[in-house]
Amino acid sequence: MYCLLNADIELVGIVASYGNVTKEEATANAAYLLDVAGRSDIPVIPGASMPITEEDTVFYPEIHGKNGIGPIQPPSNFQYQIYPFGTIPYLIEKYKNELIVVDTGRSTTLANVFILFPDYVEMVHSFYVMGGAFFVPGNATALAEANFYGDPNSSNFVLNKAHNLTITPLNVTQHAVLTEDLAMEISKNSKNYYSFMLEPIFEYYYEFYKKSVPGIQGAPMHDLLTIMVIVKPEIVDYIFYDATVIESTEAKGMSFIDYRPTSKKGKTRIAVNLHYDLFIKELRRIMLKE
Amino acid sequence: MYCLLNADIELVGIVASYGNVTKEEATANAAYLLDVAGRSDIPVIPGASMPITEEDTVFYPEIHGKNGIGPIQPPSNFQYQIYPFGTIPYLIEKYKNELIVVDTGRSTTLANVFILFPDYVEMVHSFYVMGGAFFVPGNATALAEANFYGDPNSSNFVLNKAHNLTITPLNVTQHAVLTEDLAMEISKNSKNYYSFMLEPIFEYYYEFYKKSVPGIQGAPMHDLLTIMVIVKPEIVDYIFYDATVIESTEAKGMSFIDYRPTSKKGKTRIAVNLHYDLFIKELRRIMLKE
Amino acid sequence: MYCLLNADIELVGIVASYGNVTKEEATANAAYLLDVAGRSDIPVIPGASMPITEEDTVFYPEIHGKNGIGPIQPPSNFQYQIYPFGTIPYLIEKYKNELIVVDTGRSTTLANVFILFPDYVEMVHSFYVMGGAFFVPGNATALAEANFYGDPNSSNFVLNKAHNLTITPLNVTQHAVLTEDLAMEISKNSKNYYSFMLEPIFEYYYEFYKKSVPGIQGAPMHDLLTIMVIVKPEIVDYIFYDATVIESTEAKGMSFIDYRPTSKKGKTRIAVNLHYDLFIKELRRIMLKE
Amino acid sequence: MYCLLNADIELVGIVASYGNVTKEEATANAAYLLDVAGRSDIPVIPGASMPITEEDTVFYPEIHGKNGIGPIQPPSNFQYQIYPFGTIPYLIEKYKNELIVVDTGRSTTLANVFILFPDYVEMVHSFYVMGGAFFVPGNATALAEANFYGDPNSSNFVLNKAHNLTITPLNVTQHAVLTEDLAMEISKNSKNYYSFMLEPIFEYYYEFYKKSVPGIQGAPMHDLLTIMVIVKPEIVDYIFYDATVIESTEAKGMSFIDYRPTSKKGKTRIAVNLHYDLFIKELRRIMLKE
Repeated sequence: MYCLLNADIELVGIVASYGNVTKEEATANAAYLLDVAGRSDIPVIPGASMPITEEDTVFYPEIHGKNGIGPIQPPSNFQYQIYPFGTIPYLIEKYKNELIVVDTGRSTTLANVFILFPDYVEMVHSFYVMGGAFFVPGNATALAEANFYGDPNSSNFVLNKAHNLTITPLNVTQHAVLTEDLAMEISKNSKNYYSFMLEPIFEYYYEFYKKSVPGIQGAPMHDLLTIMVIVKPEIVDYIFYDATVIESTEAKGMSFIDYRPTSKKGKTRIAVNLHYDLFIKELRRIMLKE
Repeated sequence: MYCLLNADIELVGIVASYGNVTKEEATANAAYLLDVAGRSDIPVIPGASMPITEEDTVFYPEIHGKNGIGPIQPPSNFQYQIYPFGTIPYLIEKYKNELIVVDTGRSTTLANVFILFPDYVEMVHSFYVMGGAFFVPGNATALAEANFYGDPNSSNFVLNKAHNLTITPLNVTQHAVLTEDLAMEISKNSKNYYSFMLEPIFEYYYEFYKKSVPGIQGAPMHDLLTIMVIVKPEIVDYIFYDATVIESTEAKGMSFIDYRPTSKKGKTRIAVNLHYDLFIKELRRIMLKE
Repeated sequence: MYCLLNADIELVGIVASYGNVTKEEATANAAYLLDVAGRSDIPVIPGASMPITEEDTVFYPEIHGKNGIGPIQPPSNFQYQIYPFGTIPYLIEKYKNELIVVDTGRSTTLANVFILFPDYVEMVHSFYVMGGAFFVPGNATALAEANFYGDPNSSNFVLNKAHNLTITPLNVTQHAVLTEDLAMEISKNSKNYYSFMLEPIFEYYYEFYKKSVPGIQGAPMHDLLTIMVIVKPEIVDYIFYDATVIESTEAKGMSFIDYRPTSKKGKTRIAVNLHYDLFIKELRRIMLKE
Repeated sequence: MYCLLNADIELVGIVASYGNVTKEEATANAAYLLDVAGRSDIPVIPGASMPITEEDTVFYPEIHGKNGIGPIQPPSNFQYQIYPFGTIPYLIEKYKNELIVVDTGRSTTLANVFILFPDYVEMVHSFYVMGGAFFVPGNATALAEANFYGDPNSSNFVLNKAHNLTITPLNVTQHAVLTEDLAMEISKNSKNYYSFMLEPIFEYYYEFYKKSVPGIQGAPMHDLLTIMVIVKPEIVDYIFYDATVIESTEAKGMSFIDYRPTSKKGKTRIAVNLHYDLFIKELRRIMLKE
């Protein structure tokens, strides 16, 4: 929603993969959200159906709703077009050296793109990934954040191979909380064509977070923050360390950096402190057209 | 070569990936071998460039030669066409329920196809994989065969998801030895358009095997046997067990089955004993047109 | 039994640890078997109660009986003396450079002895360990033999540190089958003071093996063979390779050697082929006093 | 030193094991420090020589000095008595239900005591362990604290089996910094018989910490704090969670607890916040006899 409402961002395609819901549901959701915004011209490309770890993926309907966007679902007769996987190298070449790839889910599809089209990947301008949890508990396990836990091999691959990479990990996104008051204010704002669905979505997520994080004042916007820092990098602080994901044992999916005082810094930019006032200001600017 | 020379097999496409050489070299080699056979109409599709494990792939020029087919390489001015990755679901659909997929290298590309096009994969008739080593030492490590060692995550994925799967592991392929005498006989046979390159290729491989397996009487034809059992299944015996690949620790890449006397059998067909006389008979039939 | 019946062996102490039964039961059993032989002068020393892996140990009463020697158990009023753990370095020093240590169970106690008394361990003449399974299925898991599976860390430690080490692995001990005929013959032999308990013990074990290894002709004598090769080394053939135990993943407890044709040999002696006729001849010599 | 200077603590024995130095050096050091205090009556018991992981132990002379107490070493003609390992169950029984076991090094010996003498271990009053690092970088690796890293299997064992267990992890001990000023003040204090060696020891450690933790104001007293919280528990805050140590992969030696908002609490007491003023007050009270 933020992408489409923000004139500074030109959304050129959405790759929809398994994760919170199946690939098919994610594809329909993406097409529907584009349709609501009157932007059905933006291609929706189905990506991965499952992680490279052959385990069956666990979906979390109690968090994301049966269909992946809380209680909202596309109308049953909703029709939409999908684009083939080969559209990805085409788009990369078209927006050569300017394309920014944002990955807010499991990294399976992105790793596949690296494996299949390495020459095209070099033409991407930069990568933004939501994932990991540094020096805080995870949300999927005691140690692991859900995106990195869902396909640790692919996440590790992306962390290792992607250039100009920015990570917005759980330790910072968990503070990007959308409060009930602001959510209600946005849902009543007529300038925003998503207003009508915002209240039920917010209530659905908030209900879950109240249970899992007692005392929380709203719902954290993990994916929104990941996109927001592209246009408003000053919303967070950064450290530069190259991160790794543990692929097996009890620590599966855990990300870590070597943060000891004298260790070597890296090239990956990792968001650390959230400037909450700036986050809310930007959120209001786009969602309330202030 | 065997595929093209054997009228019982209709080769409908070759997916060329990294493995013994880079993806680019493998693609050129495939195109060249088709060209020699006068079959440039068969599509060559570049696949994976690297495994999902983010480690750098080790190539083995001392085994397979600098370019992947011993000392042979395509002419420097050799031109050829390649087909996009999206050709794969198209081919699967075209040869729906009849297509046999043979994987004689790392399983990275095949796993990607499962992840990206699961609905198409269901239309494949059966899968034949060369890989693993059961109850014998490996060739990549003390425990692991090279194909499964090269991308154990993808191999495990394929072993777990593929239907009608036949494995021809190292313990059987290592006995499918092409002797020097027969190699020379084939290389002098004018009915076979590959004859001219067979002697140098054989000598290259045999040189390597004499060093690594003292006393061996020729070069084992791992990939050839994998294809041969499609048309001549009686060349080997089979057991039915579902196999697993160890993904980490010292046992990385090792495959195993639960072969204890009272354990449960599986659905994967695994080749076990080679009937060498049948193997040689078939080899002569195709290569010498006997 | 074999040790006490064989005049070539001087048994100087028994360390009784957890494994098939608890440490307490193993201690009582050892004391009782010595008592039956009229050799209560031989010290029984309680060893480890559990493995270093903090998992709870699984006992196998269906194999070894509720008390560890099939259906046999010491009389309820059986009294015996135990010796403290510190007796071990004392015994090693007393039989300096002549003491042979035989380990037929989990290697926890033996590893502890290495850790606590490294200077004494150097005075041991040689070590004989029953454990591991090379190129055959395991008996505890598809890959692992029970002794190495029970405490893989300690087994690995011993394999790595012990000098003059001989392993009799499952692949050879499983062929050291005591047939029903011979068992009955021994149980009727009056020269052997264990005769009276042999029939019920044999029947108990044989019952189990008939179920787990359909078609087997008797009960394999894993531990007996381990001891027998000390005095009759010609009963088996040997290879020399240093073995390793996998400590985690699905391969936990699996032992392996690098047996590829050109790999480096090691210093550990591993039994491989059983000369069954020699085995039976020695068994008859001792048990039937032939 | 703190133990002997503090009348509230009755030191009844020291088990000296490998760790920062070899077992032999640690034994001599313990005996020497007792000798300086005029307390050679307290038994010194040699414990483990190496960890159960069969890797060679790395000592850190750049931290702890060639002999383990910075530049200090026992006189070359220093004579002392050692007590056998069997003294441990004897001491436990003697101080039944009152004995407090403090483990400030690798947990190998302590795990061995659990394995060999489980009935005695039950008579121990409580356990205090220095080890682990929660939500902060490690000091041995990016993830692991040195004590847990040195023998993760044994540490895990102790964390799992010990009752009334208090852990003082790196995240709290690293703040227990002894400043240069206070160190000098203590070293000039005539009431403290260790004064003469304090300055050189402090300077040695401080030199190391200045390099490894730029900006640090003194040397952290990891082991001292572990003992101090026995008599002054109010010096730190506590949380109650059961901790686990990762035994393999890149996360080897890392400790973790499930600290997510709704996770289950445990029975292990883990120190978290240091009340630095209380720490210094207690340090002054004992070391300066204030």
